[in-house]
Amino acid sequence: MPTTLGQNQYGKAETRVVRITRDGATHHIKDLNVSVSLSGDLADVHHFGDNAHVLPTDTMKNTVYAFARERGIESAEAFGIELARHFVAGQEPIHQARVRIEEYGWERIGTGDGEARETGHSFVRTGQETRVTQVTYDGERWQVISGLTDLTVLNSTNSEFSGFARDRYTTLQEAHDRILATDVSARWRYGWTGGDEPAPDWDESYRQAKKHLLQAFAETYSLSLQQTLHQMGARVIDSRDEIDEIRFALPNKHHFPVDLEPFGIENVTADGAVYLAADRPYGLIEATVLRDGTEPRIPLDLTHL
Amino acid sequence: MPTTLGQNQYGKAETRVVRITRDGATHHIKDLNVSVSLSGDLADVHHFGDNAHVLPTDTMKNTVYAFARERGIESAEAFGIELARHFVAGQEPIHQARVRIEEYGWERIGTGDGEARETGHSFVRTGQETRVTQVTYDGERWQVISGLTDLTVLNSTNSEFSGFARDRYTTLQEAHDRILATDVSARWRYGWTGGDEPAPDWDESYRQAKKHLLQAFAETYSLSLQQTLHQMGARVIDSRDEIDEIRFALPNKHHFPVDLEPFGIENVTADGAVYLAADRPYGLIEATVLRDGTEPRIPLDLTHL
Amino acid sequence: MPTTLGQNQYGKAETRVVRITRDGATHHIKDLNVSVSLSGDLADVHHFGDNAHVLPTDTMKNTVYAFARERGIESAEAFGIELARHFVAGQEPIHQARVRIEEYGWERIGTGDGEARETGHSFVRTGQETRVTQVTYDGERWQVISGLTDLTVLNSTNSEFSGFARDRYTTLQEAHDRILATDVSARWRYGWTGGDEPAPDWDESYRQAKKHLLQAFAETYSLSLQQTLHQMGARVIDSRDEIDEIRFALPNKHHFPVDLEPFGIENVTADGAVYLAADRPYGLIEATVLRDGTEPRIPLDLTHL
Amino acid sequence: MPTTLGQNQYGKAETRVVRITRDGATHHIKDLNVSVSLSGDLADVHHFGDNAHVLPTDTMKNTVYAFARERGIESAEAFGIELARHFVAGQEPIHQARVRIEEYGWERIGTGDGEARETGHSFVRTGQETRVTQVTYDGERWQVISGLTDLTVLNSTNSEFSGFARDRYTTLQEAHDRILATDVSARWRYGWTGGDEPAPDWDESYRQAKKHLLQAFAETYSLSLQQTLHQMGARVIDSRDEIDEIRFALPNKHHFPVDLEPFGIENVTADGAVYLAADRPYGLIEATVLRDGTEPRIPLDLTHL
Repeated sequence: MPTTLGQNQYGKAETRVVRITRDGATHHIKDLNVSVSLSGDLADVHHFGDNAHVLPTDTMKNTVYAFARERGIESAEAFGIELARHFVAGQEPIHQARVRIEEYGWERIGTGDGEARETGHSFVRTGQETRVTQVTYDGERWQVISGLTDLTVLNSTNSEFSGFARDRYTTLQEAHDRILATDVSARWRYGWTGGDEPAPDWDESYRQAKKHLLQAFAETYSLSLQQTLHQMGARVIDSRDEIDEIRFALPNKHHFPVDLEPFGIENVTADGAVYLAADRPYGLIEATVLRDGTEPRIPLDLTHL
Repeated sequence: MPTTLGQNQYGKAETRVVRITRDGATHHIKDLNVSVSLSGDLADVHHFGDNAHVLPTDTMKNTVYAFARERGIESAEAFGIELARHFVAGQEPIHQARVRIEEYGWERIGTGDGEARETGHSFVRTGQETRVTQVTYDGERWQVISGLTDLTVLNSTNSEFSGFARDRYTTLQEAHDRILATDVSARWRYGWTGGDEPAPDWDESYRQAKKHLLQAFAETYSLSLQQTLHQMGARVIDSRDEIDEIRFALPNKHHFPVDLEPFGIENVTADGAVYLAADRPYGLIEATVLRDGTEPRIPLDLTHL
Repeated sequence: MPTTLGQNQYGKAETRVVRITRDGATHHIKDLNVSVSLSGDLADVHHFGDNAHVLPTDTMKNTVYAFARERGIESAEAFGIELARHFVAGQEPIHQARVRIEEYGWERIGTGDGEARETGHSFVRTGQETRVTQVTYDGERWQVISGLTDLTVLNSTNSEFSGFARDRYTTLQEAHDRILATDVSARWRYGWTGGDEPAPDWDESYRQAKKHLLQAFAETYSLSLQQTLHQMGARVIDSRDEIDEIRFALPNKHHFPVDLEPFGIENVTADGAVYLAADRPYGLIEATVLRDGTEPRIPLDLTHL
Repeated sequence: MPTTLGQNQYGKAETRVVRITRDGATHHIKDLNVSVSLSGDLADVHHFGDNAHVLPTDTMKNTVYAFARERGIESAEAFGIELARHFVAGQEPIHQARVRIEEYGWERIGTGDGEARETGHSFVRTGQETRVTQVTYDGERWQVISGLTDLTVLNSTNSEFSGFARDRYTTLQEAHDRILATDVSARWRYGWTGGDEPAPDWDESYRQAKKHLLQAFAETYSLSLQQTLHQMGARVIDSRDEIDEIRFALPNKHHFPVDLEPFGIENVTADGAVYLAADRPYGLIEATVLRDGTEPRIPLDLTHL
């Protein structure tokens, strides 16, 4: 057969694991969706159905649960590192492991009115962004790309779009005071690659990166969503030494001022306006911002999965 | 033709309206998804395609935007009341209007570290539950059913399930300390029907109802999800005089302790456990709780839409 | 506590069962999603967490699988009837059972070019509509409501919308040749209620009802979507004696001719046009058509679940 | 600022265009979802908000509609080529255009029973797979990657999984007769790069590739999903000279035989069995198959978007 087998990988996707840790009456929760992918010396299974090098994906699922119990889940990143190391170290034919994790946030339910009381075991899902990470390990070096998806933000002013290029099909009017809204999908790559370097404090790094993304979005007077994107990326790179690269996919969630002239109503005035929140189509802005001197390694579509 | 036309209604569904109100540099946002449905003397359009009694659904969309601009959006309920009144009063053949609204929550983005600063015009979507309402008006009486969907909660202890009925197909083991988790979908009906009664403070009522739902969920030692549901409903009826009836659809989001015995690991211990968060199938508990002496009027499937 | 427990039910939702029947080398597949709901003497579980009358939802899941194996799945309706009878007959406190089923269609994969060959065991999902049914049984009488969802149809001509009512907010232009498109959601109620009557041939009835819906949609010259809906319903009632009532929810999936005048292009001409397929908002037309002399019993929102 | 701008692109995503072509009473329909992405000399908009090189995404939307009207839609691929050429040729700062298109299939509604009649203007959406393409053009060379998503297939026998690797966490039993089911997501790259070569017949190529995928799936006696994947890929490469490379992401949609022993029922017998169709987790098999001597160019995650 005149064909060659190219890149291939296999694994177990979307193992949903919840870990409850009890510290007396105070419980803690970790809620993850874990996808493992392995690659290596796997030609024979493709060519002949020879499974001798194929650790079942069912085993990967078991391992996720066993590791969650035995080693705990300190952070999504630390958990992914444990898993990736295990598969590469434990299976000789496997040369690389990639672990993708989604993490869902929970906060405690407050009870009592006057004072802030909690049961210690009652939680409500935050529902805001989903935290994500991808850990890759080839037996020597680590790559950790973390980020978030579906963080929906909106500025009701301080956004313009003008001075743009035009062609025969251009009908858009310039806008000097518009709504700017997007669902932030961001992935940042940590400089850490293992060896003697101490690993970052993954949770603190995540909290700070999210904070900087939000603040840069809020504080930028925007002449284009590209400019806002760049400010958000540069703010993270500037503020967080452990992060070398960040990539975004930002849909431009259009909010069009509704034309109410036919009804004798002036819509856009000093005291506000009414907007149509559109679904499709939407602008889509994607870009990478890098620390000077580093190489880009975040795959172009990773923000889009 | 030996057929009869039964109940019928028509309208414009899912008009997405965002209202920004500017109070100097401080902006406020309301973000709604509005669905209008009208019924009345509409037999001729069904039988003959005679549209003389059919106000276009496009007009309903225009009205949503125009009303949002001219009258503002005090609350989802108040906005629904304005719209419903308008269609019944304005179109002689229309005898009833039903307005369903979903509302998405936003909070302000804080900027600055040491002190709580805000831009006044920057928002992040809360992402937690969706607030909903349904306003119905027949020209004389009002019915307002409000509620929420997708409020995901979890108790990591204080939940049992035992002493249940058994038959030939029963294999379930009793559980004396399990996770109880659900996505709350609730609809409550206000006693208010218009006339001389003052309308409730819709926003305060919503905040309080949500608070009571969360606290009753957290504080109930649960022998079954039905019991928890009933406690949640009774708490709202007890605490809020303006609410006469509440109905729930609560999926039992199963979290199964994983069997780690094959790996020599004891999973469920005093310091916690690891759970498989299952997707399907799921238990589904539905019930209505009523103030004594009131008639149930919330449709059985309304919590399920 | 000054509250009353209203209507309540509980069950197992979305048990996904696939039944393969082997007739030598020729296999047959049934692919269902089954939701069971029981009601009856269940006050104590709500009030006190007393589960003595509560057959676990886990048992319902087991029963679905066991019945699928022992009794086979002749049709979704017949399977639902078996299940409903079992729960009402087997559990004294249970007074009513409701079984909702979704069925996914599969067709055989053809192999070989010149002649139509098949492996007998290879299938591809049709992907078109989802067939649904709801069987309700109270120990005496049966109600079977079947139907379909997500059957997307489009007429590229023979549709108008004109002569409509107008008010201050009407800007819509009349349309004398427009696209009419909808996702058909229909539920029809069979007259059969058990007893000595023979049950309909559920599969043949489904095939015929779907055929009539499609043909009535195609053949109606439409002055409004309401008229098309009515024709579809009347055709089914006229053609199928076993069906007494049918209800529809038909979104008007707007396809707007794009204004290409700014580019010097005439869009709508005798040889066709280009349309923007809009997402939201959409018109929504709902109505019931009944056989003369029958009572409407399909819940208003059932087509909308 | 010590940062560098990396790869960036912007465009309009998900423009929904429907083209009706009238050939007398016989109409034809094309239904696309078009996403355009441009890259080039765009640093200034990121750094300074200077939009001089930024053709508005609104203009891209207009262009999609205008081209659909003026030039027609011969195939998704041909339409993508027209669009990509236009943007690269028309905008000096733009160096590359990528057009992604989803195409939804429609078939005609038959009317009349005895003979196959059609209205010529009535369609029902097929609902099966979505056809996709990605056209990339840098002013010199073309790359066309086409494929499909969500083609759900199932073999009810002729599938095994045994002889696999084991470790401490392996509990899976060998299976010698199991269901094999997957949602095929495939992308194939055409060898055509423009210049003097004639372009393939895109529609015929698509039909043939889909046919070969289905037949290879049906005809392979499978020892692993990897082997089936490889057979599917090799079949396409072998059969279609115009295709040089194909990549798959195949979820292993697990169908577990249900354990009915507790009820005294033998489930898996010569006349069939009952299966639990699981949602998550699922195996995920990804691989590329190449014509000998060609370079892989399909991005690893493209099948996963």
